[in-house]
Amino acid sequence: MTPVLKGLIAYPITPFDRYERVDIPLFRSLVERLVVSGSHGIAPLGSTGVLPYLTDEEKEAVLEATLQQVNGRLPVLAGVSNLTTERTVYHARFAENAGAAAVMILPMSYWKLTDDEIFRHYETVARAISIPIMAYNNPATGGLDMSPALLRRLLEIDNVTMIKESTGDIQRMQQLRRVLGEEVAFFNGSNPLALAAFAAGAAGWCTAALNLIPELNSLLYQAVLANDAEAAREVFYRQYPILEFIVRKGLPRAIQAGLKWQGIEGGYLRSPLTPLTGTEVQELDQLLSAENVSLG
Amino acid sequence: MTPVLKGLIAYPITPFDRYERVDIPLFRSLVERLVVSGSHGIAPLGSTGVLPYLTDEEKEAVLEATLQQVNGRLPVLAGVSNLTTERTVYHARFAENAGAAAVMILPMSYWKLTDDEIFRHYETVARAISIPIMAYNNPATGGLDMSPALLRRLLEIDNVTMIKESTGDIQRMQQLRRVLGEEVAFFNGSNPLALAAFAAGAAGWCTAALNLIPELNSLLYQAVLANDAEAAREVFYRQYPILEFIVRKGLPRAIQAGLKWQGIEGGYLRSPLTPLTGTEVQELDQLLSAENVSLG
Amino acid sequence: MTPVLKGLIAYPITPFDRYERVDIPLFRSLVERLVVSGSHGIAPLGSTGVLPYLTDEEKEAVLEATLQQVNGRLPVLAGVSNLTTERTVYHARFAENAGAAAVMILPMSYWKLTDDEIFRHYETVARAISIPIMAYNNPATGGLDMSPALLRRLLEIDNVTMIKESTGDIQRMQQLRRVLGEEVAFFNGSNPLALAAFAAGAAGWCTAALNLIPELNSLLYQAVLANDAEAAREVFYRQYPILEFIVRKGLPRAIQAGLKWQGIEGGYLRSPLTPLTGTEVQELDQLLSAENVSLG
Amino acid sequence: MTPVLKGLIAYPITPFDRYERVDIPLFRSLVERLVVSGSHGIAPLGSTGVLPYLTDEEKEAVLEATLQQVNGRLPVLAGVSNLTTERTVYHARFAENAGAAAVMILPMSYWKLTDDEIFRHYETVARAISIPIMAYNNPATGGLDMSPALLRRLLEIDNVTMIKESTGDIQRMQQLRRVLGEEVAFFNGSNPLALAAFAAGAAGWCTAALNLIPELNSLLYQAVLANDAEAAREVFYRQYPILEFIVRKGLPRAIQAGLKWQGIEGGYLRSPLTPLTGTEVQELDQLLSAENVSLG
Repeated sequence: MTPVLKGLIAYPITPFDRYERVDIPLFRSLVERLVVSGSHGIAPLGSTGVLPYLTDEEKEAVLEATLQQVNGRLPVLAGVSNLTTERTVYHARFAENAGAAAVMILPMSYWKLTDDEIFRHYETVARAISIPIMAYNNPATGGLDMSPALLRRLLEIDNVTMIKESTGDIQRMQQLRRVLGEEVAFFNGSNPLALAAFAAGAAGWCTAALNLIPELNSLLYQAVLANDAEAAREVFYRQYPILEFIVRKGLPRAIQAGLKWQGIEGGYLRSPLTPLTGTEVQELDQLLSAENVSLG
Repeated sequence: MTPVLKGLIAYPITPFDRYERVDIPLFRSLVERLVVSGSHGIAPLGSTGVLPYLTDEEKEAVLEATLQQVNGRLPVLAGVSNLTTERTVYHARFAENAGAAAVMILPMSYWKLTDDEIFRHYETVARAISIPIMAYNNPATGGLDMSPALLRRLLEIDNVTMIKESTGDIQRMQQLRRVLGEEVAFFNGSNPLALAAFAAGAAGWCTAALNLIPELNSLLYQAVLANDAEAAREVFYRQYPILEFIVRKGLPRAIQAGLKWQGIEGGYLRSPLTPLTGTEVQELDQLLSAENVSLG
Repeated sequence: MTPVLKGLIAYPITPFDRYERVDIPLFRSLVERLVVSGSHGIAPLGSTGVLPYLTDEEKEAVLEATLQQVNGRLPVLAGVSNLTTERTVYHARFAENAGAAAVMILPMSYWKLTDDEIFRHYETVARAISIPIMAYNNPATGGLDMSPALLRRLLEIDNVTMIKESTGDIQRMQQLRRVLGEEVAFFNGSNPLALAAFAAGAAGWCTAALNLIPELNSLLYQAVLANDAEAAREVFYRQYPILEFIVRKGLPRAIQAGLKWQGIEGGYLRSPLTPLTGTEVQELDQLLSAENVSLG
Repeated sequence: MTPVLKGLIAYPITPFDRYERVDIPLFRSLVERLVVSGSHGIAPLGSTGVLPYLTDEEKEAVLEATLQQVNGRLPVLAGVSNLTTERTVYHARFAENAGAAAVMILPMSYWKLTDDEIFRHYETVARAISIPIMAYNNPATGGLDMSPALLRRLLEIDNVTMIKESTGDIQRMQQLRRVLGEEVAFFNGSNPLALAAFAAGAAGWCTAALNLIPELNSLLYQAVLANDAEAAREVFYRQYPILEFIVRKGLPRAIQAGLKWQGIEGGYLRSPLTPLTGTEVQELDQLLSAENVSLG
């Protein structure tokens, strides 16, 4: 079976206008940049896209705008995570009907969920759709940490076929690979782990960095495909300070500031998120200006 | 100034019917039990009330039902926490207009917020209403940990007048008291810390335990008021295993099971939350059956 | 059976001369201060006494000096913790022969020990002596955390009769009391938890603070004995900033600096430990100068 | 300058006889195995060699036995870590005089040390010897975590020329490389990170695994030297379960059991360390028996 996704999966931000309303035209232009700059898939409504800060109607508008803009050029991976199972099912069905290639689901926490509750949550959603599901582990944002054993269990559900790991712990990926076997595609969602994850056998890299430094991201992936560890290391360290920065500052805030630095309109953030401070922008400026980031 | 709240603040669960719709009549009967069993305030739409799992309309219906049922007998503290500032303002205004005595606000995280973002969030809400605000710190559910220094800063906002601390770390409360001075009312939201928090000077105890063991909770508070440390300790250890259990299992699940054990209708949970397992119910049964819990 | 120890157990520092040799005459004078200022027991060779930084000969000299100086006025609790079981047995026997009332044993870690290894370690030492053993849990210094369940198991060994808990988590003490029952004496070793631990039923407080503020420490204990929660709280908050400081800075460094501040010779530290910096001394100065600490 | 060390640095265990005395003849035979099986350096008196559990005399005997047995065939890296600065200086001088190529120093904690205390500790030792020093960061055993910034500061001391990182966090190594530059040799001391660390540019791997699976270890290093990422990954996953196991169980216990499994005498452990349990030995047996470990 040809996998639905592999390589570099791009996560657009969701831009707002000055009244904090979603700015769909601007969003489409940002998606277009991602499509033409080397991405292998587009993933709206992820953490970068501030999914949990959007209303149901906004989520639908963002997904539809993505599909229209991408227009079949790349597979679209739709984020449909929600605190309740009912709303997750709702958005997953919407995504399937709208034409998404797959959906990404993060188990979200207010109350911590038991493994059985998480399993049942995925199972209920999976039964309601027929497109593939990427199970997404990111305790830092979602508040729940799924063990390799639980992820293996989720993969027993028919259309759960992909794993995205964002704990930032390379040993976790190695355990995943050991537990799941070589066949199962796991994706790295932790930017500073890009090099180590590819070394460990990741099938792809889910990243917002493609909004800012797509050439460097692509060069890394090419070095990986060419089995050239030295070249991969060299190009990774050129982008590592930026990867580390955008994660440390939060992806939506950091990407918006980086776009502005590049002279690209990135819109406004939705409160309580605020723009990077002056000092933070200066730090980002130094990182993006460094000779080793430029591509000539 | 007489404080709006003190003593035992009761947190009702939000019960659902078998189709996972909010069951307002049942909710009102559960609120009535809390009003007549020794509580000094009623706090709907808290963590126990699964606030984040409700739609805007459901939140409004729950708050209105609370106010109608309480009917002025006790002050009502309305939970209005939301990921976005705009929705928090909306619900805070609704609460004020509906007649709540105060609102409780937990800064919620998907993306971690900076201290400045949290401050601005509170400030924006505070300006939009004129009733008092209880700033609520609970990293385990909300995902953000507010330092004593940040809480002090929040208290500089005019109508932020109360602090609820739920980290479960008694040293945090001691630091709060040291940083804030004796005058500021801080409330304990960590059930297993009830004894230690009162020893450290807490003005009140925000608890879902009042749904299950109001007599024991009240006896503890009376011993505290009587400055009788030995009696407080004795009655605390009688209820400690239950307090520890309901926190460990999650308040909505544990309270619902405990109500059922007492022969009281507690309704259904909303997915992905599921009822306690058989083994968990057995453990609860043993705790509630223990002679030292009975009151005769 | 009358317990060997209760109340305020004092931990002297081990002072060094300028060449970093143990200064026994100075040590004896520091012990004498502790004996006459309200302590109920003297505990040389604890963490405060930098036990692990001493040679075997130095340990023996320090214990003998303590016993000579105390001269039967108070029970002496000798620290005999060591990485190896063989050396722990050796020092425990030495302590018994020298006349110590009891020994304190912290399981020490370089390699983490399993519960069985810890149990066997205590059992081997216990069989080699006939005086009581205080099992001491302090993961911050010793590197191992003993669960309430393991501590209960240790208490099944005949002469393990006391528990000292220093995790700084009040819930741990409550669990201990629940697991061990009311009869077993547990001692609090975490200074900032002094109030909460007494509220929770601690039999005593093991503390280096007696080197600096014995009057405040004693007033707290008297309020506890008098079952006066308000007085205990009041006097606790007067000493809390100092308790918090000495723990944060490390007991040997902080006590030595505090003695100097009071005009009392405290000797030198052994490298790599260094005196508090100027800024740290200033902070301590402010805390000790504050009106609420003075006793007049 | 040609670096003193690179590649695979082997850590022998220190075997004991049934009376828990160091067994020097057996130790020499274990060192010989390491010398002839592809190691590029021999490092006695490390964590694997239970350094902190040995007396001064035993440490000297072990080092002398190593140097005699290696007899110049490979560089010897002597562990000289100690809680006190004075003893560290003593053992470092002994190692230099005895003929060690370099010394490894872990800052050890009972009391946590400040950055300044750690710096001064290294500086004092460095001034006392003229051979190179490897600064070793391993919070899990030593109890202190040195930041990349502190490690950079240590490298300003003349003969501190190597860094060994054992936190198990690949991001830490990446930060080290970023902070220190490409020229500084950093060594990986975390076995499960062997692949990721080489991908990130580690100069060598300090490992006890060479006692059990030297062929697999060597194949990994050869793939790294050949810039063959795929081969490195393939051979890494063949040894990963064993690497993970020996770290999880503690190196001395796991290596001793593994030697026994291979029919090689590994002696006894020193109490409180105990042999692996039957179940643990079974798990190790399965890992070592697995076809993917055999080399044929």
